[in-house]
Amino acid sequence: MTNSTTGLPVVGMVGAGQLARMTHQAAISLGLSLRVLADKSDDGAALISPDVEVGAASDWDALERFAKSCDVVTFDHEHVPNELVAALAASGVVVRPGAHALHFAQDKRAMRERLGALDIPVPKWSNDPNELPRPYVAKAVRGGYDGKGVWFLDEGDQLPTVDHIIEERVTIVHELAVQVARTPSGATKCWPVVETVQQDGICVEVIAPVPRLSHTLIDEAQSLAVRIAEELDVVGVLAVELFEAPHGLVVNELAMRPHNSGHWSIEGAATSQFEQHLRAVLDWPLGDTKPRRPFTVMANLLGGPDTDLSKTLPAALAAVPNCSIHLYGKSARPGRKLGHVTALGDDVEETRARARQAVAVLRGDRVEE
Amino acid sequence: MTNSTTGLPVVGMVGAGQLARMTHQAAISLGLSLRVLADKSDDGAALISPDVEVGAASDWDALERFAKSCDVVTFDHEHVPNELVAALAASGVVVRPGAHALHFAQDKRAMRERLGALDIPVPKWSNDPNELPRPYVAKAVRGGYDGKGVWFLDEGDQLPTVDHIIEERVTIVHELAVQVARTPSGATKCWPVVETVQQDGICVEVIAPVPRLSHTLIDEAQSLAVRIAEELDVVGVLAVELFEAPHGLVVNELAMRPHNSGHWSIEGAATSQFEQHLRAVLDWPLGDTKPRRPFTVMANLLGGPDTDLSKTLPAALAAVPNCSIHLYGKSARPGRKLGHVTALGDDVEETRARARQAVAVLRGDRVEE
Repeated sequence: MTNSTTGLPVVGMVGAGQLARMTHQAAISLGLSLRVLADKSDDGAALISPDVEVGAASDWDALERFAKSCDVVTFDHEHVPNELVAALAASGVVVRPGAHALHFAQDKRAMRERLGALDIPVPKWSNDPNELPRPYVAKAVRGGYDGKGVWFLDEGDQLPTVDHIIEERVTIVHELAVQVARTPSGATKCWPVVETVQQDGICVEVIAPVPRLSHTLIDEAQSLAVRIAEELDVVGVLAVELFEAPHGLVVNELAMRPHNSGHWSIEGAATSQFEQHLRAVLDWPLGDTKPRRPFTVMANLLGGPDTDLSKTLPAALAAVPNCSIHLYGKSARPGRKLGHVTALGDDVEETRARARQAVAVLRGDRVEE
Repeated sequence: MTNSTTGLPVVGMVGAGQLARMTHQAAISLGLSLRVLADKSDDGAALISPDVEVGAASDWDALERFAKSCDVVTFDHEHVPNELVAALAASGVVVRPGAHALHFAQDKRAMRERLGALDIPVPKWSNDPNELPRPYVAKAVRGGYDGKGVWFLDEGDQLPTVDHIIEERVTIVHELAVQVARTPSGATKCWPVVETVQQDGICVEVIAPVPRLSHTLIDEAQSLAVRIAEELDVVGVLAVELFEAPHGLVVNELAMRPHNSGHWSIEGAATSQFEQHLRAVLDWPLGDTKPRRPFTVMANLLGGPDTDLSKTLPAALAAVPNCSIHLYGKSARPGRKLGHVTALGDDVEETRARARQAVAVLRGDRVEE
């Protein structure tokens, strides 16, 4: 099953979105070529990889046929039914991370229970809406992302109809994320803790490393991430999203794959999250995660008023010659996540300004002079 | 002809070697997808791009069909017959660089004549073997690379049978290279001057920037490159290889495409030569070329005693966790150019050692402890 030219293994990724797209870029450097299972033939990664099967991740036949053609199978998203992941492993496919770990990234209730049992700090939560005082937050147990599946509920507001848990409203000082890679052999490697800046529940900016956080909290966040990876037996990259609350850190979310909060590492770190994920799922040695410059800022590009990238892209390249633009191969629509911009620098505010300016020009925002 | 999803232009590259492979990686970030004309279906770039036509660059029908499906056509190598490049342009294809410029990268005699006419320093040379004293160097007019097409001739040695010129043997203090990108609108941007370390006529290492060279010579090298790009109307990336001789700089070679001496820029500069080449041939604004760290060292990987990359690659990743390995998707054979390694650092000798160590492990060299 190894690549016939190079003798290197074939890595398959279920899902062909932007994460698979950027993983393919990393795979090329390592002499690999990512095989992807795409929902649709015009998914981001399907447009740029020659090794694409089209099929639904929930279709056992498509999934099994795809998986059997790969040395190791990993994931671009969490939407593969857990029982199919388990069945793949039972049929002899090497699946990383495994179903037992993925479960906790797919089911928020199971994750909150498990982390609680490990004495890892999480927000106060319950299955019973009467157990916490309003206002509180209801969260869908499955499938929430980018602010979807989260409801802030005051007195009198209706509970959602989908399966959900309720949680206290945490007072947030900063939102943080920390990523760790773990191999099947048990090696782990953390990147620096980053700050994630959110707008309407969507991450718009990541600052690496987080500019103002005590060494104690940085160490605590990294230790939490390593402990979660080990206790849950995660293989590959694990992203842990945290709230810095007045009384300390609480874990909000887990993702067991490359994650938006780690895109900065493509240019900003010695090893990117995409290369590291490949190395981890192949049980290859992990790379150094040190930053290349004092600050790296990643700003997400959500479609804006101007949807003609053939004009806004050259305009952004002209306006900000010192940044890295990543487009995901999507047609532009207002609000759609179309790409991201990364800037490296010595001064955090100057670096943020540069990334934000490129995004503003790419969106076609009217910029105040 | 624009990409139907993103509305961005389609760039075609004639040739599908490692340069096309790395250009595809850069294209993905810009939301593009490189279309390649591959000699063989297992050429380096054909393995990792979905948009491949197989055909010879010297086959007019294949070339024309390919070119007509692209918004702009550029090159991975110099082996497209110049008259076909001219014919493509005459038939309405946008070809960058154009045949009139490419001529000087394809024909060493024409290049030496033209540079001489521009008063740009080149080695003393002649078409007449009696005009220079032996020992001298004979150079093939066409198709030389990596030490091939170069003959060091003492008294009594036979002249080559291929069309050639003869040149003085320059006393070389250092070998240097400088790259410049130029757009059809006339914008130019240089990278720092680099030192190229050669072994048996093959470049084994590039140090960016060159560690010891006077500001005067650095300025002169960059001015020469810009002047050559402008006088020859080059569009895209131009690599100028120079000798530092005791009496000053002389130009040795020109390449009008991304070049081995610029691979360091992938990690080492704000804009890589591959992204810059795309920007230039699209007449988009050029990016910043500033280095990210004080030194970047690129070491070429030529196949060594161990040809099992599935063992030597993980071993190299373990031995040098802080470097970037690029493999070109080729089967390993002793002496074959299989990839390169890039290391970034503050100290030039430590950085060189790191890049060289990774290459030694990838080759399976027995390393003295």
